[in-house]
Amino acid sequence: MKRLNDVILLAHGDGGLLTHQLLEKYFLPSFRNDLLAPLSDAALFEMQAGSMAVTTDAFVVYPIFFPGGDIGKLAICGTVNDLAVSGAKPLYLTASFIIEEGFALSDLERIIVSMAETCHEAGVSIIAGDTKVVGRGQADKIFITTTGVGCLLPEADVGYHRIEPGDVVIINGPLGNHGLSVLLARESFSFKTKIYSDCAPLNTMTEDLLKQFKGIKFMRDLTRGGLATNAKEIALSATKDIRLDAAAIPVDDEVKGICETLGLDPLYLANEGKFLAIVSGKEADTMAAYLREQWGAGRASIIGRIDEGKGDLYLKTYLGGTRRLQMLAGAPLPRIC
Amino acid sequence: MKRLNDVILLAHGDGGLLTHQLLEKYFLPSFRNDLLAPLSDAALFEMQAGSMAVTTDAFVVYPIFFPGGDIGKLAICGTVNDLAVSGAKPLYLTASFIIEEGFALSDLERIIVSMAETCHEAGVSIIAGDTKVVGRGQADKIFITTTGVGCLLPEADVGYHRIEPGDVVIINGPLGNHGLSVLLARESFSFKTKIYSDCAPLNTMTEDLLKQFKGIKFMRDLTRGGLATNAKEIALSATKDIRLDAAAIPVDDEVKGICETLGLDPLYLANEGKFLAIVSGKEADTMAAYLREQWGAGRASIIGRIDEGKGDLYLKTYLGGTRRLQMLAGAPLPRIC
Repeated sequence: MKRLNDVILLAHGDGGLLTHQLLEKYFLPSFRNDLLAPLSDAALFEMQAGSMAVTTDAFVVYPIFFPGGDIGKLAICGTVNDLAVSGAKPLYLTASFIIEEGFALSDLERIIVSMAETCHEAGVSIIAGDTKVVGRGQADKIFITTTGVGCLLPEADVGYHRIEPGDVVIINGPLGNHGLSVLLARESFSFKTKIYSDCAPLNTMTEDLLKQFKGIKFMRDLTRGGLATNAKEIALSATKDIRLDAAAIPVDDEVKGICETLGLDPLYLANEGKFLAIVSGKEADTMAAYLREQWGAGRASIIGRIDEGKGDLYLKTYLGGTRRLQMLAGAPLPRIC
Repeated sequence: MKRLNDVILLAHGDGGLLTHQLLEKYFLPSFRNDLLAPLSDAALFEMQAGSMAVTTDAFVVYPIFFPGGDIGKLAICGTVNDLAVSGAKPLYLTASFIIEEGFALSDLERIIVSMAETCHEAGVSIIAGDTKVVGRGQADKIFITTTGVGCLLPEADVGYHRIEPGDVVIINGPLGNHGLSVLLARESFSFKTKIYSDCAPLNTMTEDLLKQFKGIKFMRDLTRGGLATNAKEIALSATKDIRLDAAAIPVDDEVKGICETLGLDPLYLANEGKFLAIVSGKEADTMAAYLREQWGAGRASIIGRIDEGKGDLYLKTYLGGTRRLQMLAGAPLPRIC
């Protein structure tokens, strides 16, 4: 039986004494930095003039701990990566917690430490935060919303408008590991596997790539909805067709096997450390090789190309046929991020 | 019985087709603006060089509709006001939604419209957002996290370090209306009252005040924990004592009456349109009068003063005695914001 002082109480969320103790004992030891002003209404920071980027995401992943990550690591990577693929250098994050009464403080601590480690890896700081507590049964353990602010990299010139026929689609590694690792961590599954979430911050990689390759025209991290949903969305927004080649798309054998067993398609599974880049044809081979050699992305691959069109997404199947792909619809994997 | 297409489904949160339809049909018609890039990973905006402020808050108020407001209006006001009292001009907001499966789309629409109206009133735009759906019983209807970015006003020079003995504490109106209106809107109460939440954006008022009165040294909005908790926190952070005068603190008669009946103290109730300013003694009377005359804040009042000390908060009672006040502890009013 958990003791009262091992768990989150409603009073931890009332803005009073226990809220302050929670801050002092759990959040500040891991998150402390020069800009974090825990007793102020807002955090202040200095910026150079220029273009800035902002993004926000709520994280509700279930279960909160899974092979290769947890909701805290995910909340940092997800927001960092949204800025990274937009061509921005992530600088500052805010983090807002909604916690269910009775949540173990030891789990909260583990999540906070994981967030701090991931921030360190990505070179970002959490400079503002908030904690709310809701009663038992009014939330499922813990939800985290992160918002990220960054500055646009001068080298970056990415956007739907730059995508042209003849451009090439590159991804930085195999697909489906995050989605499947989370799914298999649920009570209802009893597979023993070596599948780990690919959850990782991508910003140092994308920043380097943007410096090395002027031909990068667009990037997108392949989270909810997976490669297929995101590629379809890009095709529609760019009013071009995208043609993917199934044989070229890297998927780990174990992921492939379990997906076949469960009737899942790795092209629709969420990833948290994978992105696609749309690159001018002449730089594509060099960039894929650079990813493999300089970034250890052993399975970075050219997986398709851009064609004239109205926004269709086509997949060349293993058997040489062509299939039109749509966005994920109707068979959701809820709470995958 | 609600039909399937009247409510939020799990598939509205899977990043696929229904997520896009939700965006197109509900969010974009109200939130559309030049910077909102619904199909991008991040929103871009231009900034001048200078000091910026950022703040974030999760909103979990229960019930989501209450006299004088709703969770959407609250989510805009709360974040706008945190920037405002920090001396910043709020510019851009992000909004992240966690919605329970089965939530009525008509309620979502009502909340979105209310958010858009409040943004318009405050002169801010929502430029990035996210929606996640969790299963029935995994959240209570809807939670909203807003993050705000603003630029520090050149006129603003506010901070704990500026608070000195002889400074005066001003508030812009009566206390307790928000907390009590939310509490009375819960099923367990059957009072018929005319108490409305004071929920309102304060930024145009604070911006004007900062321009008019150089003697404003500190501001704080009196949300969770109310006047007492916030004043105690300020006293501790400034290492000064604060002495409040109960007879000078405005509380509406009806609020006072119901608080007495229920055993609540209005000094600890949350407000969403009230702030305290700590002002140099010589500007205090002029500023209180300015609030009353120019801003229609009829009950704006000088309610106390700053003294040498170590961070104590004292209340001169109606009977002339002096009571030491502490932060809210042990009798929380959960989900008041």
